[in-house]
Amino acid sequence: MLNELYQPPLALLTDLYQLTMAYGYWKLGRADQHAVFHLFFRKPPFRGGYAVAAGLEQALQYLERFRFEQSDLDYLGSLTGNDGAPLFEQAFLDYLGQTKLSVDVDAVQEGTVTFGQEPLLRVRGPILQCQLLETPLLNLINFQTLIATKSARIATAAGDDPILEFGLRRAQGIDGALSASRAAYIGGSTATSNVLAGKMFGIPVKGTHAHSWVMSFDTEAEAFAQYAAAMPNNCVFLVDTYDTLDGVRQACKVGKKLREQGHEMVGIRLDSGDLAYLSIEARKILDEAGFPKAAIVASNDLDEHIIENLKSQGSQIAIWGVGTKLATAFDQPALGGVYKLAAIQQADGTWQPKVKLSEQAIKTSIPGTLQVRRYMEDGRMVGDMIYDEQVGVDPRRVIVDSKDATRRKRLAETTSVELLRPAMQGGKRVAMAESLKDIRERAQRQLASLHPTIRRFMNPHEYPVGLDIGLHELRDNMIHEARQARWQAEEDPS
Amino acid sequence: MLNELYQPPLALLTDLYQLTMAYGYWKLGRADQHAVFHLFFRKPPFRGGYAVAAGLEQALQYLERFRFEQSDLDYLGSLTGNDGAPLFEQAFLDYLGQTKLSVDVDAVQEGTVTFGQEPLLRVRGPILQCQLLETPLLNLINFQTLIATKSARIATAAGDDPILEFGLRRAQGIDGALSASRAAYIGGSTATSNVLAGKMFGIPVKGTHAHSWVMSFDTEAEAFAQYAAAMPNNCVFLVDTYDTLDGVRQACKVGKKLREQGHEMVGIRLDSGDLAYLSIEARKILDEAGFPKAAIVASNDLDEHIIENLKSQGSQIAIWGVGTKLATAFDQPALGGVYKLAAIQQADGTWQPKVKLSEQAIKTSIPGTLQVRRYMEDGRMVGDMIYDEQVGVDPRRVIVDSKDATRRKRLAETTSVELLRPAMQGGKRVAMAESLKDIRERAQRQLASLHPTIRRFMNPHEYPVGLDIGLHELRDNMIHEARQARWQAEEDPS
Repeated sequence: MLNELYQPPLALLTDLYQLTMAYGYWKLGRADQHAVFHLFFRKPPFRGGYAVAAGLEQALQYLERFRFEQSDLDYLGSLTGNDGAPLFEQAFLDYLGQTKLSVDVDAVQEGTVTFGQEPLLRVRGPILQCQLLETPLLNLINFQTLIATKSARIATAAGDDPILEFGLRRAQGIDGALSASRAAYIGGSTATSNVLAGKMFGIPVKGTHAHSWVMSFDTEAEAFAQYAAAMPNNCVFLVDTYDTLDGVRQACKVGKKLREQGHEMVGIRLDSGDLAYLSIEARKILDEAGFPKAAIVASNDLDEHIIENLKSQGSQIAIWGVGTKLATAFDQPALGGVYKLAAIQQADGTWQPKVKLSEQAIKTSIPGTLQVRRYMEDGRMVGDMIYDEQVGVDPRRVIVDSKDATRRKRLAETTSVELLRPAMQGGKRVAMAESLKDIRERAQRQLASLHPTIRRFMNPHEYPVGLDIGLHELRDNMIHEARQARWQAEEDPS
Repeated sequence: MLNELYQPPLALLTDLYQLTMAYGYWKLGRADQHAVFHLFFRKPPFRGGYAVAAGLEQALQYLERFRFEQSDLDYLGSLTGNDGAPLFEQAFLDYLGQTKLSVDVDAVQEGTVTFGQEPLLRVRGPILQCQLLETPLLNLINFQTLIATKSARIATAAGDDPILEFGLRRAQGIDGALSASRAAYIGGSTATSNVLAGKMFGIPVKGTHAHSWVMSFDTEAEAFAQYAAAMPNNCVFLVDTYDTLDGVRQACKVGKKLREQGHEMVGIRLDSGDLAYLSIEARKILDEAGFPKAAIVASNDLDEHIIENLKSQGSQIAIWGVGTKLATAFDQPALGGVYKLAAIQQADGTWQPKVKLSEQAIKTSIPGTLQVRRYMEDGRMVGDMIYDEQVGVDPRRVIVDSKDATRRKRLAETTSVELLRPAMQGGKRVAMAESLKDIRERAQRQLASLHPTIRRFMNPHEYPVGLDIGLHELRDNMIHEARQARWQAEEDPS
């Protein structure tokens, strides 16, 4: 939402510790030492089998505008430590003021279906710059990826039915709402109620009237009739202000008058009560009154699970209005994306891979300058391999599960594509902005190519993602060496 | 986050149905008919006993800047209905382009402790304008109120310990993060990691270093020593990159060198593992090494429940870093605030109260031009009465529970204050901006004055909120009449 909305550059949109570390690197003369960081999530959200990448365009816009303003530097200059003295010395602030980004960014295209441990973004360049960018990149990528994924799940449940995103009023802030509308559209929603999102992103907008319209008239019949008179080409009557099925009958009466005037009622909307029961009964009323094509729209705290359940009950809902549960990803409102150092360049120009250990295998990071190769068969995705781009793919062509080293899979010589593509080089953007339509189509194409069991909500089938066997061996050795070093340190606690 | 951040006015930041209804009112010549709407939530979030109002300042900034730009009108002019013809006629767009807000807004001050059914905002003026404002006002008030409340709960659990808000990387968008930092501070957090929030709102900022700093050196000992050399007055060492308790010992060694140079280590931070065990063991190590004042900071998916639990286990954590769970209100990421029509002015100038019925008593709205009177005894809040300001308080001074009409309470003649205060009159702002510090102090004062059982997390004691008995009787009669009218209609389905 950057170029369109935000006034100033937002270099201070970061955690203070990024700036204190930046200061440390600068003080030590290491500001320009090159490093590689990866942005990735460990597990798909919602206990699901995949995620849909989104938010790159906003991240790139952020990077394009990155600079410190004088007022930012003044503010940083005012911060003090526990002795009351300034945290930062003036020469460092001058350095920040002159900083222009020179990083390389490689990124997975928006709309790509991705899996745990795979970098969505790789940032390479001066460690000081890479570090400052951690927090804003996570903020911008985490949320849209979360919502695009939620939307894809809701679209899976809805099948071919349209989904209307209604989340603005309950979203977390203004661009919480705008980013959610954008990401939901990528994931599979059809339209939004958010007019500004429609204007900014070209997403179709939908809306008719609320309960307050009905209440502002003496009777529901009058409210429907007057709405139809004002806007005959956009009639979805909200029928549950007083008595739902009676409201459906009132809508049919107005629908008949509309038809006499050459217009067709689009449908009715249910916003409360038992949606299975009411939609089945409303369908009968509409059909009997001569409106077999009038759609039944439903809303009221819907999510993928409720939609799946309503469908299994034979509900007659044709269009799904989804608000809070989609725009906030209610059941898991944050993607646990992280940004980890994976390699650092030595004075002699060689790269030293870095690994962060953890007692939890899934939290032990993957070292190197990573790339993801996706193998395809007959247009279907069959497995992803994470490898070190500087080393290349091991000729054995075996991938090893990064969480469960006993699982290995040999991938056939087949079509493959590399997922990370250049987005920014030397601080200059090289990836063109993609249209939202193209991004959405990519997501829909890839989702359709997944085996349906991977899209399943409960205990989804696991898509094969593994490490190149050479990278796996390197990582194993590094973990082993780090543990040995620790044991030695414990035996010799000098 | 409006004046500070956003470039254009945001009149399109609304649901399309607000504009289609606006068009309907305009077509019917009712655009200037006056109406009253209330913004309120039905139940406090998190199954808690209260909420802390927040977000008014951003809502007023939104209203002050409200206007349609030419590009907004052009966009609206491009929208079409189901017959392909434009939704809106040009004369209406011209009308919108000339619209200047003329509404009156009365609002509860930020930082006020509030309860279910009480208006946080009352908007009175031309129904067309009131309607357009529904969605943005909900967006701006819902979220900050949610987060201020979450923060108050976390502060309750933490007692006198400082709380650091670390949510930026996982927040829902840029101003999802900035609004969260602001609202969290109102609710009781002490500082934030978000530097831009610090600059914009004057919230204290905190931060030291991350795992990546440690990993960028060959050893943890070197990483701590170099950090201390760079920034000796801001040393909180993150000790869990490799082995946590070993990390504490390394921190102590560096702390001793720091002390020789005249600086004091602030503390250490734990970010993984069993925080109860590790904090108790780390405390022993720090004390034995001569650092009884070094604070143990903890982070890692904390919320009020985990903090309460850690305290009950005797953990030695002195400062709580709370991120995702606070900034997204993880366990309930949306406040169910609504905005309901409550009265409409007739041609003769009289006001007609309006009620929305529902089969759920809690969803039946309260008619009238509402005000909230809060009764106080010895500086303690003892009960709130919702009454119709145009009618005044019934001399019987009895309040009736709006959900459970059998519960009545007579309030003594005692000190009272009206909660809704003029914020905007005739479209002009009349409430001065308050400092965030004042707002935070109000919240802390009011929270402290609540009986502790109301602040309890599990099945909190219910604070008395009721309707003025006259208003209760009016509402009962209206519900009765509406039901009768419906029965008659069913008997005579003409």
